[in-house]
Amino acid sequence: MGAALLFFILMRNQVARSHQTAVNITSVVVLIALYHYLRIFNSWSDAFTFVDGSYIQKGAPFNEGYRYVDWLLTVPLLLAELVIVLKLAKSTTRSLITKLSIAAIAMILLGYPGELSAADSSTRTIFGILSTLPFLYLLFVLFVELGKSLDRQSDQVRKIVNGLRFMILIIWGVYPLAYIAPSVISDEATAEVVRQVGYSLADILAKPLFGLFILAIALIKTQDEAGSLPETASA
Amino acid sequence: MGAALLFFILMRNQVARSHQTAVNITSVVVLIALYHYLRIFNSWSDAFTFVDGSYIQKGAPFNEGYRYVDWLLTVPLLLAELVIVLKLAKSTTRSLITKLSIAAIAMILLGYPGELSAADSSTRTIFGILSTLPFLYLLFVLFVELGKSLDRQSDQVRKIVNGLRFMILIIWGVYPLAYIAPSVISDEATAEVVRQVGYSLADILAKPLFGLFILAIALIKTQDEAGSLPETASA
Repeated sequence: MGAALLFFILMRNQVARSHQTAVNITSVVVLIALYHYLRIFNSWSDAFTFVDGSYIQKGAPFNEGYRYVDWLLTVPLLLAELVIVLKLAKSTTRSLITKLSIAAIAMILLGYPGELSAADSSTRTIFGILSTLPFLYLLFVLFVELGKSLDRQSDQVRKIVNGLRFMILIIWGVYPLAYIAPSVISDEATAEVVRQVGYSLADILAKPLFGLFILAIALIKTQDEAGSLPETASA
Repeated sequence: MGAALLFFILMRNQVARSHQTAVNITSVVVLIALYHYLRIFNSWSDAFTFVDGSYIQKGAPFNEGYRYVDWLLTVPLLLAELVIVLKLAKSTTRSLITKLSIAAIAMILLGYPGELSAADSSTRTIFGILSTLPFLYLLFVLFVELGKSLDRQSDQVRKIVNGLRFMILIIWGVYPLAYIAPSVISDEATAEVVRQVGYSLADILAKPLFGLFILAIALIKTQDEAGSLPETASA
């Protein structure tokens, strides 16, 4: 996340000023993630101690809440950067961002009570299903409503947006898999590791990789508008 | 706060140089808040320990003073950025900032003795009321005195300033609610959590969100003056 943050800040002036906002939001997203991963690291270190050849859980519980606070901030921002970089009409931009943000926030808030409950509890299953509903709505907005606004984009941009939408469909599908890990893997320690590795991998793909594609769109648009390399368009 | 700081710094060069001061003050405000929230985090961690399945208060008391020092610095700056971004006549700017700063400082200084006193003490109530008086004067300056200077602003800017004044009225109303939490909620731990969550939420709305509106005014003014995108108006 820190490496991505540096890269996005350094690459910013290759993008025309009118397209920098989306890249700036990408930087903000990976900074937020960087902070929370440092907190997650510390919380994990505090939760487990090495005793007699293996790690055991000490007093303080590992705080999974950091991930949810992170997502609550970063997921709406990720969706906003996708809409903003396309430079649609102001009213379309506002309406898409509002719908996507509400769906994202509902999805994350509904996931949290399930995350906190026991591995084999029905609460976990019910909130898992409930949080899938806003996710489906979010996909509908991305594939149907956003789809209507793609006519004016260049072929290259349209291809990347298509790729990004399928990325959201597939990568965001890793989160539910990590979520159900404690329910399907009987060994508690293995389940916890699978869950954390799953969430972390998905975060790397959904934030820095997603941001690289947003940067690519901003660079293509800069080039298309300048008719050349953006040597003169930035400071 | 850190995310907002990065965003305001990165967005600065989208604003014409003549309007950057207000955005720079916004960056300063969220940096000050970032610092104090890290101190608050540490003070909170030091004050509570996880023992036998729940958090208990250890020796060191949680230091609520960080919030008041933060406010003493950031509240006058927040009000100053609102006045500065409007680019009023110099004498009006100076007079408004002086009045608003004095009212803000009086409000915060009078709140602190009440914050330190017991939940059901009359000291708490008296200082709560005393600190409301400068707040009312502050609202008078914002709605009446500042109102007189809004004629020259564009419709778009006037709308945002209106929104900001009501934001101050409503969001700053959360602080008194958090302040009286210990007096109206009997369970001490719950009251403390409500108070901290209330203050923190209000701070997020009053600093980064407030700053986003200031940035919006600066961007609109930049665009109005350039008659186009600010490609050439800044470095």
